[in-house]
Amino acid sequence: MNFLSGVMRIAYLGPGGSYCEMAKDKFLDMYDFYPAEEPLNMISRVINFVDENPNTVGVIPLENSVEGTVRESSDTLIATKNPNIRILSEVIVPINHCLLSKVTELYSITGVISHPQALAQCHNFISTQLPMNLAIVKASSTADAARSLDGYNLTYSAIGSKKTAQLYNLNIVCENINDDPTNQTRFALIGDFETEPTGNDKTSIAFSTENKSGALLEVLEIFSKYSINLSYIDSRPSKTKFGEYVFHVDFDGHVKDEIVKNAVYEIQEKSNFFRFVGSYAKYKPIF
Amino acid sequence: MNFLSGVMRIAYLGPGGSYCEMAKDKFLDMYDFYPAEEPLNMISRVINFVDENPNTVGVIPLENSVEGTVRESSDTLIATKNPNIRILSEVIVPINHCLLSKVTELYSITGVISHPQALAQCHNFISTQLPMNLAIVKASSTADAARSLDGYNLTYSAIGSKKTAQLYNLNIVCENINDDPTNQTRFALIGDFETEPTGNDKTSIAFSTENKSGALLEVLEIFSKYSINLSYIDSRPSKTKFGEYVFHVDFDGHVKDEIVKNAVYEIQEKSNFFRFVGSYAKYKPIF
Repeated sequence: MNFLSGVMRIAYLGPGGSYCEMAKDKFLDMYDFYPAEEPLNMISRVINFVDENPNTVGVIPLENSVEGTVRESSDTLIATKNPNIRILSEVIVPINHCLLSKVTELYSITGVISHPQALAQCHNFISTQLPMNLAIVKASSTADAARSLDGYNLTYSAIGSKKTAQLYNLNIVCENINDDPTNQTRFALIGDFETEPTGNDKTSIAFSTENKSGALLEVLEIFSKYSINLSYIDSRPSKTKFGEYVFHVDFDGHVKDEIVKNAVYEIQEKSNFFRFVGSYAKYKPIF
Repeated sequence: MNFLSGVMRIAYLGPGGSYCEMAKDKFLDMYDFYPAEEPLNMISRVINFVDENPNTVGVIPLENSVEGTVRESSDTLIATKNPNIRILSEVIVPINHCLLSKVTELYSITGVISHPQALAQCHNFISTQLPMNLAIVKASSTADAARSLDGYNLTYSAIGSKKTAQLYNLNIVCENINDDPTNQTRFALIGDFETEPTGNDKTSIAFSTENKSGALLEVLEIFSKYSINLSYIDSRPSKTKFGEYVFHVDFDGHVKDEIVKNAVYEIQEKSNFFRFVGSYAKYKPIF
């Protein structure tokens, strides 16, 4: 029994064969729960599904070791109607991209389809091993790209996992084509539940300040004052005025720790928008 | 005569009809220079073209008012072989997305193709006005999407500018479909040239610090010390270790101003990677 025992459904970015599906399997193992599964075709649909359905959790990609934050995830997460939808847990999935096609020879390939992040992660391979006049088509997921190969010229290719090749009956033309062989993606389990401190946690928040000189620094100085280690800052457009931002910040500790609670309170006082995004255990791979 | 009078070539993200082409035209007007034009199909190719060819400038998208920073631009810009490739100038182009198709009725549309940022910018329109089982296909530019419509089912649509509709002989099914009617994109002119202070400038830098607790805050305190207004921070993956970042920062002032020069010197001292990305006049639209 754990805090997820009442969960009835788990939504994730599908279709089958996606890296997000692998992350979903890791979470099911980790918390030993077996809800009904709901593969959806957009990150925002996964988050909205969790927002609209009680006793539901979701799995979304948060960050890739090469490409950085998945903005569709962070932007949608801070805009849910239920403000208690939070990050509950994280896992890291190693990414092993393969070039998949109906054909078997690299020199026959005339186009490549994949999720924009996968295309970006294989940028060197695409620039040096594939022809200059290659057609580059972006798809909503790596699995979707593989599934769509039938609709294109036979000499098109998709970038995806080995499992995708099996699922969609494609040849693996090249393996491990990602520029960085240590490529990894961090996924989050999200939902309206409370977590407890584990002693090795991190906290994510989002806030905006008044648009006046020095306002951002005033907030950052709160972290200094409490000696809280700041690991990550991102500036996302406020969408109201060009040059105004919502800041997404990750730092060490759990919101139920006294120091973090006080710091978060002071940041809220200085913000004109504030959203608590979650306190959760830092992922430790099991070897 | 101005500092760009020796420029022979201007590269930009094409093909014709792209918003980047409009930005290129604005820069040509602004500096009154008429170099040979080189439309290229990837942002990284524009930057590499400028990197490899002397007397060449390039135009790349930097930031959208809804979607935020264009990471391919900022990541590639700090990795050029010539460390003197810098941002020289910026312009802001209003974005007016239209739904374009061979068909004329909205209810006939079965798919939509565009650049991932354009799709994201029209997210509400796509979710509410187009069918749930719509095929969503991502292309390398809005103009490329329009150009590719012939290769798909006739009932597919593309998102792009009015000019794109004319160029590729498409109907404008709907106008101004972007979620935010004040949607704008900021474009940069880049090249190996020096700029002079104008009195209303901003400076962009990128740096990474030692991976130790508080290292980021130590650098940010330098801005406090000199009362320099920090407007933007982004954390991009270092691509060496998950959780290590290169920070991209924008702040007020020109590197030839005494205060900014001193602050930049101190930041360099505290960084294990540092790249000066440019000091340039803040864009003021001419009414």
